[in-house]
Amino acid sequence: MSAEKTVDLGQVQDIDVLNLSSLEERAKKVIGQGEFGYISEGSDDEYTKKRNTSAFNDVHLVPRVLQNVEEPDQTTEFLGRKLSSPILAAPIAGNTLAHESGEMGLAKGTKEAGVMMAQSTFASKTIAETAAVSAGAPYMFQLYMPKDWGYCKYLLDEARNAKASAIILTADSTLGGYREADVLNHYHLKGKIANLDGYNTGKDGVGAGGLFAESMQSLNLDLIDKLAAYSGLPVIIKGIQHPADADAAIKAGAAGIYVSNHGGRQLDGAPASIEVLPAIAKVVNHRVPVIFDSGVRRGTNVLKALASGADLVGVGRPFSYGLALGGWKGVAAVAEHLKMEINIAMQLTGSKTIEDVKNIQISHDLKF
Amino acid sequence: MSAEKTVDLGQVQDIDVLNLSSLEERAKKVIGQGEFGYISEGSDDEYTKKRNTSAFNDVHLVPRVLQNVEEPDQTTEFLGRKLSSPILAAPIAGNTLAHESGEMGLAKGTKEAGVMMAQSTFASKTIAETAAVSAGAPYMFQLYMPKDWGYCKYLLDEARNAKASAIILTADSTLGGYREADVLNHYHLKGKIANLDGYNTGKDGVGAGGLFAESMQSLNLDLIDKLAAYSGLPVIIKGIQHPADADAAIKAGAAGIYVSNHGGRQLDGAPASIEVLPAIAKVVNHRVPVIFDSGVRRGTNVLKALASGADLVGVGRPFSYGLALGGWKGVAAVAEHLKMEINIAMQLTGSKTIEDVKNIQISHDLKF
Amino acid sequence: MSAEKTVDLGQVQDIDVLNLSSLEERAKKVIGQGEFGYISEGSDDEYTKKRNTSAFNDVHLVPRVLQNVEEPDQTTEFLGRKLSSPILAAPIAGNTLAHESGEMGLAKGTKEAGVMMAQSTFASKTIAETAAVSAGAPYMFQLYMPKDWGYCKYLLDEARNAKASAIILTADSTLGGYREADVLNHYHLKGKIANLDGYNTGKDGVGAGGLFAESMQSLNLDLIDKLAAYSGLPVIIKGIQHPADADAAIKAGAAGIYVSNHGGRQLDGAPASIEVLPAIAKVVNHRVPVIFDSGVRRGTNVLKALASGADLVGVGRPFSYGLALGGWKGVAAVAEHLKMEINIAMQLTGSKTIEDVKNIQISHDLKF
Amino acid sequence: MSAEKTVDLGQVQDIDVLNLSSLEERAKKVIGQGEFGYISEGSDDEYTKKRNTSAFNDVHLVPRVLQNVEEPDQTTEFLGRKLSSPILAAPIAGNTLAHESGEMGLAKGTKEAGVMMAQSTFASKTIAETAAVSAGAPYMFQLYMPKDWGYCKYLLDEARNAKASAIILTADSTLGGYREADVLNHYHLKGKIANLDGYNTGKDGVGAGGLFAESMQSLNLDLIDKLAAYSGLPVIIKGIQHPADADAAIKAGAAGIYVSNHGGRQLDGAPASIEVLPAIAKVVNHRVPVIFDSGVRRGTNVLKALASGADLVGVGRPFSYGLALGGWKGVAAVAEHLKMEINIAMQLTGSKTIEDVKNIQISHDLKF
Repeated sequence: MSAEKTVDLGQVQDIDVLNLSSLEERAKKVIGQGEFGYISEGSDDEYTKKRNTSAFNDVHLVPRVLQNVEEPDQTTEFLGRKLSSPILAAPIAGNTLAHESGEMGLAKGTKEAGVMMAQSTFASKTIAETAAVSAGAPYMFQLYMPKDWGYCKYLLDEARNAKASAIILTADSTLGGYREADVLNHYHLKGKIANLDGYNTGKDGVGAGGLFAESMQSLNLDLIDKLAAYSGLPVIIKGIQHPADADAAIKAGAAGIYVSNHGGRQLDGAPASIEVLPAIAKVVNHRVPVIFDSGVRRGTNVLKALASGADLVGVGRPFSYGLALGGWKGVAAVAEHLKMEINIAMQLTGSKTIEDVKNIQISHDLKF
Repeated sequence: MSAEKTVDLGQVQDIDVLNLSSLEERAKKVIGQGEFGYISEGSDDEYTKKRNTSAFNDVHLVPRVLQNVEEPDQTTEFLGRKLSSPILAAPIAGNTLAHESGEMGLAKGTKEAGVMMAQSTFASKTIAETAAVSAGAPYMFQLYMPKDWGYCKYLLDEARNAKASAIILTADSTLGGYREADVLNHYHLKGKIANLDGYNTGKDGVGAGGLFAESMQSLNLDLIDKLAAYSGLPVIIKGIQHPADADAAIKAGAAGIYVSNHGGRQLDGAPASIEVLPAIAKVVNHRVPVIFDSGVRRGTNVLKALASGADLVGVGRPFSYGLALGGWKGVAAVAEHLKMEINIAMQLTGSKTIEDVKNIQISHDLKF
Repeated sequence: MSAEKTVDLGQVQDIDVLNLSSLEERAKKVIGQGEFGYISEGSDDEYTKKRNTSAFNDVHLVPRVLQNVEEPDQTTEFLGRKLSSPILAAPIAGNTLAHESGEMGLAKGTKEAGVMMAQSTFASKTIAETAAVSAGAPYMFQLYMPKDWGYCKYLLDEARNAKASAIILTADSTLGGYREADVLNHYHLKGKIANLDGYNTGKDGVGAGGLFAESMQSLNLDLIDKLAAYSGLPVIIKGIQHPADADAAIKAGAAGIYVSNHGGRQLDGAPASIEVLPAIAKVVNHRVPVIFDSGVRRGTNVLKALASGADLVGVGRPFSYGLALGGWKGVAAVAEHLKMEINIAMQLTGSKTIEDVKNIQISHDLKF
Repeated sequence: MSAEKTVDLGQVQDIDVLNLSSLEERAKKVIGQGEFGYISEGSDDEYTKKRNTSAFNDVHLVPRVLQNVEEPDQTTEFLGRKLSSPILAAPIAGNTLAHESGEMGLAKGTKEAGVMMAQSTFASKTIAETAAVSAGAPYMFQLYMPKDWGYCKYLLDEARNAKASAIILTADSTLGGYREADVLNHYHLKGKIANLDGYNTGKDGVGAGGLFAESMQSLNLDLIDKLAAYSGLPVIIKGIQHPADADAAIKAGAAGIYVSNHGGRQLDGAPASIEVLPAIAKVVNHRVPVIFDSGVRRGTNVLKALASGADLVGVGRPFSYGLALGGWKGVAAVAEHLKMEINIAMQLTGSKTIEDVKNIQISHDLKF
């Protein structure tokens, strides 16, 4: 606790949140053009990015009434951690693009709001810096598998030290999607990769260039056991879009399935994430928990994802925008707004608990 | 009759009604911004509000010809009351937001047009004030269940005195939807809650604040019997969107099912009201009458709802706009316009009576 | 022939036809506002009017190749009359709204193009005036059933004298649709009803007002026999949208089924005409010929209608616009342009004859 | 090789390719209005042209992960020729409309990029001129069947001399579609038909007018054997849109099926090319290879076509625009950009080879 006090989390301020979507235009004014392009863009024609959000309109929640609901309880557990809401601040690279406090601001904001966060390998702050702020709050580490096993071990060690609940192995990004905003802005992700700098510290004569552990392209199922064995942590696979991959990953030892299309930043032409969730959840069949992200902007989106089989629902860009606008207070405000919307949606669907939400009837075609 | 003469119904004037939708823009100019925002808005992204109307386009009426139809008869009965048309002025809170005469203007206009009205607990005029104008015309009372049983009994007593045909228990609004126009306008529903004032009258030392009987959140099926037993009136459940709720309500004693999503003001992401009607009507199976509202703007919408299983079709905002533009004469003009459109639609579909309308073939997919 | 020479067909000129849809904007500039509103409008929200045209996009023609097709033959027969193309100038009221020559111009233009025309009871020229121009060209008379049997007999006599191939009994217009352009333009169909004037001629002391034979609302199947018996002509029922009505009409003696929703001018909310055609054609099952109209603007639309079960395809407003722009030469130009498009479409679908066109595969869902 | 050096390929320059669609607006500025109209237009309302591209959005690729993919290999074979990518520069008439080098520039650009090209009968350069540049690179000749068998034999001889891998017989264009841009621009395809000039060279007293071998309209299946027998080359049928035509063509000796609707330039109202591909590929059942074109603008479009049954994927207008903007370097840049997008899409779908791509799951309705 006192550790936090010594940390500089940059300029912070309270922000009003009308809704999550409205933050984008506001954030655009305070983030550099290249940085904003990088955060907001999708790949190719942004079909999948746009469809991620619009596809939620095709999922209807059929409300129940006279269910004796009062003050619904949206607390939940994930991998043994108690959460104030089934919300995850989904892992995003380089949060100092949005705000000087980077992942530390994100850690502080999500901790205050009682929701989980995940930190990317490509974070702007080291795992240790972030953990100092997070200080035991629910936390996961997202791994972009390095080619260099030494660097990988370092990251896993740091994650374990940071009391990460799980390692999230990124499976859908062995190459970056083609993103035109970056081309138009002549933008290349700038700034230090904090964790890599941390790894190099104290090593003699090994420059960042020489040792640069670029990510491994050729991933396979064997990595799951390898990562779990070394780290002693549960391994969750992120970027699952096909039921067969979910099944294979679980059989290979995955402790969780993370359904995502990377916010439409990777394969354009992939289905909306919410479209593939039901078939995957059916195959998973509660063997392991399911995380979902891509396109979530409303409390009802969270309910739709839970009712479609998710256990934890990630939100990405809106947290970056909240961070940009208010530092950690902006992050907390985004989480609190979403919790407010979730609360109303639970009451109006007749759901007392998150378990009830999971049983809401989804009416794709109203054939009931 | 003479009672009416003594009542001041404010400024009235004849209005032209091109169609119901066109009234909104006109009313916007005569209603205050905050008040107009409150009346017109839906929740969240207004998806369900917009879908309520657009979904009618997916319901096609297949006309019949050479059916010997001339001067169709759109009169009908509802709970033993003879109506000139199967139209209900759906209950809306605080009608003085639209016009000084409030529910009294609504009562006069609907009475003149021979259609039914329903009055909200949150009306701007007391039940007694409204009943003085209504004077025996078809009338129902919509109950927002108070926490205070004393206040509830008062309301039921007043409704019975007003010769209400039924109590409509609001089941879908145990919490308000998230409505952004109010946030942007810094608007809070203003003015007195006339019925609550009426309840407090003559009570010593009990201020509105102390006694404020806010609505009960935790509703359940037992309320149906309780309300029916005390009031001796039929109890209709409003806000049904799931067939299972319709079935449970009837088994618990409900005398009617009111299919509605509150005009898209509550759970955004719920299906359009017209989309859920057929499945609910099928489960109800004529055990009790079915009321429908949400999105009705055309005579053909009324026919589509009747052909999908409704017995009475509610119209909300257009009556408020008519009231705003012309006082009770505006209300009557809205009803008469809608009756004109219904008359044409009945003739052109080959329907002599409302029973015929209920048998019009709906062609969702034209597979006949 | 020499009779034609004595007839004044007003100002005529050659017109270029880029496509049929493009004529509307051009015609708008030469027709009065009220008249243009009346010709172009649909009822209510014009949903059905717009859907009539857009629904053709949902009907895909699957072309065949290597079919040995060269110079396709689009000639056809209808009720024993040889036609240069399966096109009908669909009956439209009051053609002098568009051009001084009215139905006479229409008769001349369609005769020149070798296509059939139908004349409305509410024509601006008498049957005899039109027949003098038509002079034996393919012609049908569209009857709005008068209340006055004497007037009806007069019309039938005139139609028989004009060598009409059939009487088309209008079944879908026992009341006019609600059309807002007329309301906004304060427009009421003006000018003489030529046929009624013709009927009154020579009758002592019977003014148009007293004898005004407004149309009969209460039509039924018995009329078919009655009209056929008196006139000795085949009776075709226009405005069929339900297969059951087609079947009933044929059993009651109808010699043809005319599938139409009156160009979207009557019941708004009815399906597009092309959507109901296949189910009706299936029920008709070649017992009698099928005419189709509503929404046809392209040669491929004509092919789609034929491939969906039509034998003759009506085109309405575009002929009026052609008439407005060029008199009878404009009418002929519209027909010739459409024939050109039909010719290309036949060649490209691999159709040598109209019979081949009727066997083109329609691919609604590409499941083949 | 040295032969190429002596050839003048006009002005060339490197061009940046943001994406293929973006080239159209840029090319519009350097191509004449009539020429641009001719290249870019579709027929009638351009419904099929637009649907060709938009229909790809309805085809979702479901990515696989953890598949051990690194540096995917997009090389493939077609008719025994090794290709760097399954891309075909689809045959287009008159390429000097876009750039002075015409088909010679196209040949040079595609050769440099290692992809196949096809040359049209209506090319602006003779087969021999093009072959001099192509010099053994993968090449096919597209035949518009002449009425004059002598001219046809000449073309087949030239194609064989040019080492064409196949003759592509155009079956869908026995008449041109109705294209309004040409009408509006008063545009008629200008310039010499190089191959016809070549044929006439050295013939005494036979002027182009007298001998003009216009295309044969009345094509049939017997042509396949006739062309194959004379030329000794495989014959591929282009413009197949119906499975029955594919089957008949194979049974009549076709060595390949080319699914295409001519980029929406012929029958408007035909389905999108990608919509008919699966049913045709199913009937073909690997008896012969399948070429596909119409609407391809993205690397993911190529994958979608391959996963729907194609073996080679044609791209038309974008190569013309690349040619217009940079000469042969523009052509090569288009191919390289597309290969870059294909590479990313292969990596992100988990595809090591083109065979893997063909097994990607297409999720039309996500029912998996």
